[in-house]
Amino acid sequence: MWGPTVLPFDPSLPFGTWSFVGDQTLFDLIAASTNALNGALLARRPDHFRNFTFVGILLMALMGGIGGGVARDVILQEPPAAFMNPAYIALCIVAGVIGYYLAYDKGQLFREGLFQFMTSMSLPWYAIVGTQKAIEQGYPIFGALAIAVIGATTGRFLIDVSSGVPPKQFVRGEWFVATAIVAGLVWIVMDAAGVESWVATLIAFAVAFTLRVIALYRG
Amino acid sequence: MWGPTVLPFDPSLPFGTWSFVGDQTLFDLIAASTNALNGALLARRPDHFRNFTFVGILLMALMGGIGGGVARDVILQEPPAAFMNPAYIALCIVAGVIGYYLAYDKGQLFREGLFQFMTSMSLPWYAIVGTQKAIEQGYPIFGALAIAVIGATTGRFLIDVSSGVPPKQFVRGEWFVATAIVAGLVWIVMDAAGVESWVATLIAFAVAFTLRVIALYRG
Amino acid sequence: MWGPTVLPFDPSLPFGTWSFVGDQTLFDLIAASTNALNGALLARRPDHFRNFTFVGILLMALMGGIGGGVARDVILQEPPAAFMNPAYIALCIVAGVIGYYLAYDKGQLFREGLFQFMTSMSLPWYAIVGTQKAIEQGYPIFGALAIAVIGATTGRFLIDVSSGVPPKQFVRGEWFVATAIVAGLVWIVMDAAGVESWVATLIAFAVAFTLRVIALYRG
Repeated sequence: MWGPTVLPFDPSLPFGTWSFVGDQTLFDLIAASTNALNGALLARRPDHFRNFTFVGILLMALMGGIGGGVARDVILQEPPAAFMNPAYIALCIVAGVIGYYLAYDKGQLFREGLFQFMTSMSLPWYAIVGTQKAIEQGYPIFGALAIAVIGATTGRFLIDVSSGVPPKQFVRGEWFVATAIVAGLVWIVMDAAGVESWVATLIAFAVAFTLRVIALYRG
Repeated sequence: MWGPTVLPFDPSLPFGTWSFVGDQTLFDLIAASTNALNGALLARRPDHFRNFTFVGILLMALMGGIGGGVARDVILQEPPAAFMNPAYIALCIVAGVIGYYLAYDKGQLFREGLFQFMTSMSLPWYAIVGTQKAIEQGYPIFGALAIAVIGATTGRFLIDVSSGVPPKQFVRGEWFVATAIVAGLVWIVMDAAGVESWVATLIAFAVAFTLRVIALYRG
Repeated sequence: MWGPTVLPFDPSLPFGTWSFVGDQTLFDLIAASTNALNGALLARRPDHFRNFTFVGILLMALMGGIGGGVARDVILQEPPAAFMNPAYIALCIVAGVIGYYLAYDKGQLFREGLFQFMTSMSLPWYAIVGTQKAIEQGYPIFGALAIAVIGATTGRFLIDVSSGVPPKQFVRGEWFVATAIVAGLVWIVMDAAGVESWVATLIAFAVAFTLRVIALYRG
């Protein structure tokens, strides 16, 4: 009996299908949730903080978390994964809450170190998933790498612009953007060489993450 | 005789079909034109005004008026209603001119009160129309509410960012975003309960508008 | 033998098809590369410069060069030409490097004059190509002119917002936006009159460029 009722948890309400694996879903979810955590940490950093409320920080986390993926999917003319699969928004809200309390409770030093480490962790994923989706749609290398950069930088761009800060990729962005390009390029070469997609993804991540961490430590 | 001529009002020019009702057109037009009026009022407010010209204020009104709807339609992979039906741009220009002269002629108090009232009036419409369109496309609840929030906040986001002001939804946006979510949620529950679409729309508007006005008066 | 190998220049890598003419490609490439040159000059101008790095200036040039075209194509639900045809990104990078060294080497006066002249040169192209694409998709006049304005102003909007400067079209944008509208309108009237597309394009450019230069000289 699915007849009409106004109970808020009526089973005919379209709650959607939660999905965590399959295709690039797992890597895309890692990208979204780590970017959301970074977004909350960034929005609380003194150079970005503009009297944002708790809800404001959560919205920043969501925008930073799914912004890159939605931009990528809209350009690729696909329904945004972040809107079709409830797991994205749910995980980004959880990551935003964690980021808010981490940023609020701990000292500046820990926050900064964690933020830099998390940026290195989150940056390659959107780049790799974007590259893969674009290549599957027949994009050539330049176009696929552009999608990689857009996926990896749009969330941060929106947060920076909302905070009135010049977007990071223009100011000291050599390694930020280069990491995204390297991650995409390694995946493309692996894919052309016939390597399985998830293996290519893990190798591309390992290379890009190592590059990023080295860049951070060398200043 | 529709032969080639260079007369500017040649009937073969594609003036398009004006439409004011049908589907969500009426509610969408209300959303666009009230947001355009708000956009002009906001762009003239001292905290936003950056030596914008008259044409600049009109463009701000247009961007604020149709920005949310265009973002919504592009994400939903539909041709933007605001570009296919000339009534959108025409009404937004009229609303922008009215807003410009209202803001310019009257005192600060009236302007502020009018602006707050108009925001309460305009906010729910884009939220409801966006929710409805998303649900029709098979979006689940989280995704449909995300479209509701994007439709209701994108115009304001673009105006705020253009004025170098932190976007409202992050700074004291609890009720701004909550109103959009409530409007969408009420419509979804009504729809799932079998209520007719335009009835659901009016009830969702009434609930969200009441909530918003209460929030404003309680500070 | 196209078997899998990891050589970086493996011929199975999807380098894409370079294309310079056909449909609106030539005019669109002129639009992208002149806007990229302008983007680099603008990002180096003291009122916009925010300690951008060399790579940052190149990214600004790319964003300014292809931003308008990508926004146009995404709204028109087409795969962005700038991502499918490698010529766009390659030419924009070249134009960005030229712009960087021009801006860095020469005096303020030359830079400013060159920048104003180049803006007049680049502005009409995106407006005309956008109008043509929109009309071909069945957009009415208002919608097609909106696409013209979006194509002509999005790149500049993104650069201005990234630099924390109020976007030009709102501040003293009468002639900036009017030029785009005039270029689109002339093309539409010519097209309705049966004039061949490339002739209509050149006439529309000549009219808009003349108008823009006159506007600049009259202040």
